Amino acid sequence: MQTKYLLGENQIPTHWYNIIPDMPGALAPVIHPGTNQPVTPNDLLPLFPMGLIEQEVSQERWIKIPDEVREIYRIWRPSPLFRAHRLEKALGTPAKIYYKYEGVSPAGSHKPNTAIPQAYYNKIAGTKRIATETGAGQWGSSMALAAKMFGLECTVYMVKVSFTQKPYRKSMMQLWGAEVIASPSDRTNAGRAILAKDPANQGSLGIAISEAVEDAATHEDTRYALGSVLNHVCTHQTVIGLEAKEQLKLAGDYPDVVIGCHGGGSNFAGIAFPFLADKAAGKAVRVLAVEPTSCPTLTKGVYAFDYGDTGKMAPIVRMYTLGHDFMPPGIHAGGLRYHGASPLVSQLVHAGLVEARAVGQLACFEAAVQFARTEAIIPAPESSHAIRGAIDEALRAKEEGKERTILFNLSGHGHVDMAAYDAYFSGQLEDFEYPAEKVKESLAHLPKVSF
Amino acid sequence: MQTKYLLGENQIPTHWYNIIPDMPGALAPVIHPGTNQPVTPNDLLPLFPMGLIEQEVSQERWIKIPDEVREIYRIWRPSPLFRAHRLEKALGTPAKIYYKYEGVSPAGSHKPNTAIPQAYYNKIAGTKRIATETGAGQWGSSMALAAKMFGLECTVYMVKVSFTQKPYRKSMMQLWGAEVIASPSDRTNAGRAILAKDPANQGSLGIAISEAVEDAATHEDTRYALGSVLNHVCTHQTVIGLEAKEQLKLAGDYPDVVIGCHGGGSNFAGIAFPFLADKAAGKAVRVLAVEPTSCPTLTKGVYAFDYGDTGKMAPIVRMYTLGHDFMPPGIHAGGLRYHGASPLVSQLVHAGLVEARAVGQLACFEAAVQFARTEAIIPAPESSHAIRGAIDEALRAKEEGKERTILFNLSGHGHVDMAAYDAYFSGQLEDFEYPAEKVKESLAHLPKVSF
Repeated sequence: MQTKYLLGENQIPTHWYNIIPDMPGALAPVIHPGTNQPVTPNDLLPLFPMGLIEQEVSQERWIKIPDEVREIYRIWRPSPLFRAHRLEKALGTPAKIYYKYEGVSPAGSHKPNTAIPQAYYNKIAGTKRIATETGAGQWGSSMALAAKMFGLECTVYMVKVSFTQKPYRKSMMQLWGAEVIASPSDRTNAGRAILAKDPANQGSLGIAISEAVEDAATHEDTRYALGSVLNHVCTHQTVIGLEAKEQLKLAGDYPDVVIGCHGGGSNFAGIAFPFLADKAAGKAVRVLAVEPTSCPTLTKGVYAFDYGDTGKMAPIVRMYTLGHDFMPPGIHAGGLRYHGASPLVSQLVHAGLVEARAVGQLACFEAAVQFARTEAIIPAPESSHAIRGAIDEALRAKEEGKERTILFNLSGHGHVDMAAYDAYFSGQLEDFEYPAEKVKESLAHLPKVSF
Repeated sequence: MQTKYLLGENQIPTHWYNIIPDMPGALAPVIHPGTNQPVTPNDLLPLFPMGLIEQEVSQERWIKIPDEVREIYRIWRPSPLFRAHRLEKALGTPAKIYYKYEGVSPAGSHKPNTAIPQAYYNKIAGTKRIATETGAGQWGSSMALAAKMFGLECTVYMVKVSFTQKPYRKSMMQLWGAEVIASPSDRTNAGRAILAKDPANQGSLGIAISEAVEDAATHEDTRYALGSVLNHVCTHQTVIGLEAKEQLKLAGDYPDVVIGCHGGGSNFAGIAFPFLADKAAGKAVRVLAVEPTSCPTLTKGVYAFDYGDTGKMAPIVRMYTLGHDFMPPGIHAGGLRYHGASPLVSQLVHAGLVEARAVGQLACFEAAVQFARTEAIIPAPESSHAIRGAIDEALRAKEEGKERTILFNLSGHGHVDMAAYDAYFSGQLEDFEYPAEKVKESLAHLPKVSF
């Protein structure tokens, strides 16, 4: 009875899986926030290097992973796939639970899977500095690491509430040589405008994105990097699911249901897209995205064109959204606080190929504690949403007396998030009601797009 | 050119290596602190289960690892061995640098290697609760995890300065179900005596050991567990070096020098003892222990009989010591603040088979930053002492224009220690002078032993 399924360094995928050619229908256009017209590759050049712009719209199903990227992936990839024997036993379920563990990366999460190639494509395009934003700090620390690996400078706009509450991830960014700025800041027009209206503003991912985009757009040697949402980010993360498929083959198994937590969509896409390829080819597999009730983008948002950021600097995309000026409550799973979602994931949810479910944070922490006390690994609060989803599926299997094979992505470890566990144990956390009125208000501000 | 060398689950060692039969000369007796006579196994029964007492004095070179222990080891073992290509390049050294990485365990350090078997032997002996102490929290969190895996209760006396400065490891212990108490505490006579003299006492490992030992000795269903120093602890840690030897075979290499940081001696013993077996058999291999200048047990202490703890509750052993009432300064590498050292390691240093070197914490953080910016992994402050040792060896090789193969143990990751990096970057850290006067004073209090 094996605990983990490992692959060798030479089994790191050679290609990323690009889901675009397998999507159910054409992609919606991406709209320029200034002209209200579809963006051209040239419009994006101030923000991204051409290598990534090409991937954003590529119709190639398989995109070669550059050797320089695989060279860095080798530090922690292939990541292990675990069979959760102890958790299964504690649940008394007939279900088999597997999880792919991305916490083994140097940053402790799945984020370096895309940070590394983003730094690489910027390096070969002559970029000197990367500007980016971060919520909980998982993305910022990963981008700092990636920039350092390729000799680039890095400026991270960090959501102020996390800058204050999660100082340890800030220190990680500094250790890897990045400059870290609390957002909203006085470095940008976007930040200054927010602070003028509300000097105590604690920030949001949307605001921080505005600041980083403005920084990149206004500096010739600087490009922008986004840790989620975009097509090329989802594509890079598919190494997770591609490896998991190989590892499940070693286990002689195939999942009935594949589960990921959902914030912007990248770790979800990473575990799910390679299985959606099988589903497109006729295989029976359910795919489930689990999001927080406090920021219920996929389950309570609308499928519409909206800005990617609060400051309306970023492109307008068709996605599930709670409105670009929706300000989610400061839950501890900071990585899941985005108002929007990946356009690819959104389209898949809209087409009924992906199920979405919202869960409260107390139920997630309960699942995380049960997981840590059986499987030993301490999950990041974000990842605990996927665990909740997996445990619920396993309990349903028990209720129905049915076997079921469950695969979920444990996107990161929680060693840097122990303050959140503290808050949970001391009873300081509560479940947030879905803020229907606030969402209604922010959805009234969607841009008018005629495509 | 390979980055890491992996072994499969079925290559976890089947036996620990016990160095006792290969020691240079007989072991010094262990003296009962009450009677001043050599302890018998029965004297130790209030503290340890018989399985561990037997291992403490075993003359068997190979001790079988129970299946139940290997079953838990499988969560993170075998741990990876890395070739530090990027660090070598940054140093411009002809030396080859390998490191064994123990930060992949659920607790983030090597400590579960012994916590798991200690919990196991207690479980089969009928123990209900484990009492233990912790400095930085690496041991306490590992023991909490191990106790939970075998269904035991766990009480951890945590050095007060760490309890305050390192709350995240405290939360990890609580997540794994342990009760955590700031030491000195009012739970024990030992703690109350210290607090009566000095209510603001910030604690030390020596004091916390006294409290945990007293707790175990005064409760029928409770046994004590120590995370370092003792023979059986060193033996359990040899899985590190045994795996490293197999992995170096895959690399077609053998080390000229093996390096570990040194606090109580367990991670050092883990990487070093299997190579000392080769040395005893005639192989030319240097073995180097690196300790902090602020707590220079091996380099400035005396080789003498001394108490293992401040409260004189623990057995008297022959070891390098700075005196049982030596209070080291509160450096951030809390795991290296012990006044004594493993008797086995001490005897090996005394016999000239192991070299010892003391390094300042600024030089260690400098090494840790260089390591994180090249090898990506963030080291624990304790482990940075081994990195400093390895970099110095590599730079000497460069100076001498000689090839050299260096192996060191990266005993843990630093994700829970980012406050220490913060302090380093903001210039708040300084090197501590060797406190010669304080050591002289505490060495005047060594017990008189006539063996």
